[in-house]
Amino acid sequence: MKIGFIGSGIMGRPMAENLLRAGHQLFVYGRRFDRLEPMLVAGALGKGTPTEVAAESDITFTVVSDTTDVEQIILGDRGLVHGARPGHTIVDMSTVSPAATRRIAAALAERGVHMLDAPVSGGETGARESTLSIMVGGEAPIFEKIRPLFEILGKNIVHVGGHGAGQVVKCCNQIVVGLTFEGVAEAILLARRNGVDPVKMREALLGGFAGSRILEVHGQRMLDANYKPGFKVKLHHKDMAIVMDNAQETATPLPGAALIAQQMNALMGAGDSELDSSAIMRALERLVGEGK
Amino acid sequence: MKIGFIGSGIMGRPMAENLLRAGHQLFVYGRRFDRLEPMLVAGALGKGTPTEVAAESDITFTVVSDTTDVEQIILGDRGLVHGARPGHTIVDMSTVSPAATRRIAAALAERGVHMLDAPVSGGETGARESTLSIMVGGEAPIFEKIRPLFEILGKNIVHVGGHGAGQVVKCCNQIVVGLTFEGVAEAILLARRNGVDPVKMREALLGGFAGSRILEVHGQRMLDANYKPGFKVKLHHKDMAIVMDNAQETATPLPGAALIAQQMNALMGAGDSELDSSAIMRALERLVGEGK
Repeated sequence: MKIGFIGSGIMGRPMAENLLRAGHQLFVYGRRFDRLEPMLVAGALGKGTPTEVAAESDITFTVVSDTTDVEQIILGDRGLVHGARPGHTIVDMSTVSPAATRRIAAALAERGVHMLDAPVSGGETGARESTLSIMVGGEAPIFEKIRPLFEILGKNIVHVGGHGAGQVVKCCNQIVVGLTFEGVAEAILLARRNGVDPVKMREALLGGFAGSRILEVHGQRMLDANYKPGFKVKLHHKDMAIVMDNAQETATPLPGAALIAQQMNALMGAGDSELDSSAIMRALERLVGEGK
Repeated sequence: MKIGFIGSGIMGRPMAENLLRAGHQLFVYGRRFDRLEPMLVAGALGKGTPTEVAAESDITFTVVSDTTDVEQIILGDRGLVHGARPGHTIVDMSTVSPAATRRIAAALAERGVHMLDAPVSGGETGARESTLSIMVGGEAPIFEKIRPLFEILGKNIVHVGGHGAGQVVKCCNQIVVGLTFEGVAEAILLARRNGVDPVKMREALLGGFAGSRILEVHGQRMLDANYKPGFKVKLHHKDMAIVMDNAQETATPLPGAALIAQQMNALMGAGDSELDSSAIMRALERLVGEGK
């Protein structure tokens, strides 16, 4: 299939490579040519603008950093919308604002162009190993049409509702992940300050109701002070801003999420933007003058 | 083996029955005779005071509600300490203050009586089905001596450190459980207020990094508004008071745990003390005038 693909970052690149490996023809665009190179070597064809990418394909994926980028790439002067024929589907796999997603979908619908919002969780490993969770918003028939491509990219693929619903569910994901991080980090700090071995604590909790993949994987990271990403603080920080904006727009009180947003602010302020977001442990350690 | 057992509540009764079923002779005491009756029917022998219970046995278990009860039963006028011979081991499976535990253990040590703190997690189901997690503090040789009895009562049995360490790890457990509840509840609220089906949201999150037994079990409870305990609000409320006392004593900043303590205050204030503590969902719903 002829597929447009815009996004050559830590997530986009391995996803594009998985589509190429499955035998699809990819048309790519990127502002930074050096980042496109591995995709071109793997067989993708480079284009000069998003408009040209859309003109060559029936489906275009976008995997970029933030709401402004997505708006620019889709609706901007040289955006996908100007090349996309009616019936074209744009699948935005970035994590961006649910409200902006609904606006973009409405603007595309006026031109007969379909949209799915399909943010992912699972990080770089998930992108490489095709084990991403994909949370999809948009119309059901369009979801069914794109599903075979999602199955090349991920594992747990759920159609969660109409336009923006994928982004809302991604917000939910980041809240649950953040608060579980906070719980595990506070538990480690409390154990340590009581002179109790946090390694034993984690072991004891793993078998019971407090057990989770986060306690297992990120609990171990915190014990080892190993914050190699994984999923970067700067992205969780950006995602929590989307969560809190949505909370404000929908008048939803989220005291726990607000705390996580502040922890991400603390980590950004301390220069930890490139660490894995389980570095929330460091934000707590700093409060008592531990760590760097 | 001749075992003393004090505690005939929701947790103590099934635990005592498991020890009886394993062939041990139990000596029991309780202020409320009606609650002792099923244990006596099952073959336990009733005694008039904790002192008499200790005099008949080599090991005594206590599974009661709070710190004051434990202190009274062990060190009070008619307490275990007055009947226990040197070498006797008192195993406190209640959830109480780590500091009080250390004090009690020190007082017992002066009389040559050993102590283990061995709080549990897993609720009534865990007690009935012998699948409790047991977090044990105290001396290693004493732990090894008691281990075969723990194996009758639970599954995930970890010696986590010296006196009080079991109680500290139980605090850690309640923090992680509470914050994961909060995360799941906020996610459900946010989905709902965005018009997104929270059932789909939970399904999408279960397969990814946000997945946990709590999302699975208590997430479903919250969706069904089924707060039949399980583990009661009034107990989680009491446990969070122990956590926050310990945080104050050890000068440990726990912003997330503090939020959970306040949620438990809200639930108690709203008359939800007998519900399962995943009713934290109701505390959030009330903020926006939903639910009762």
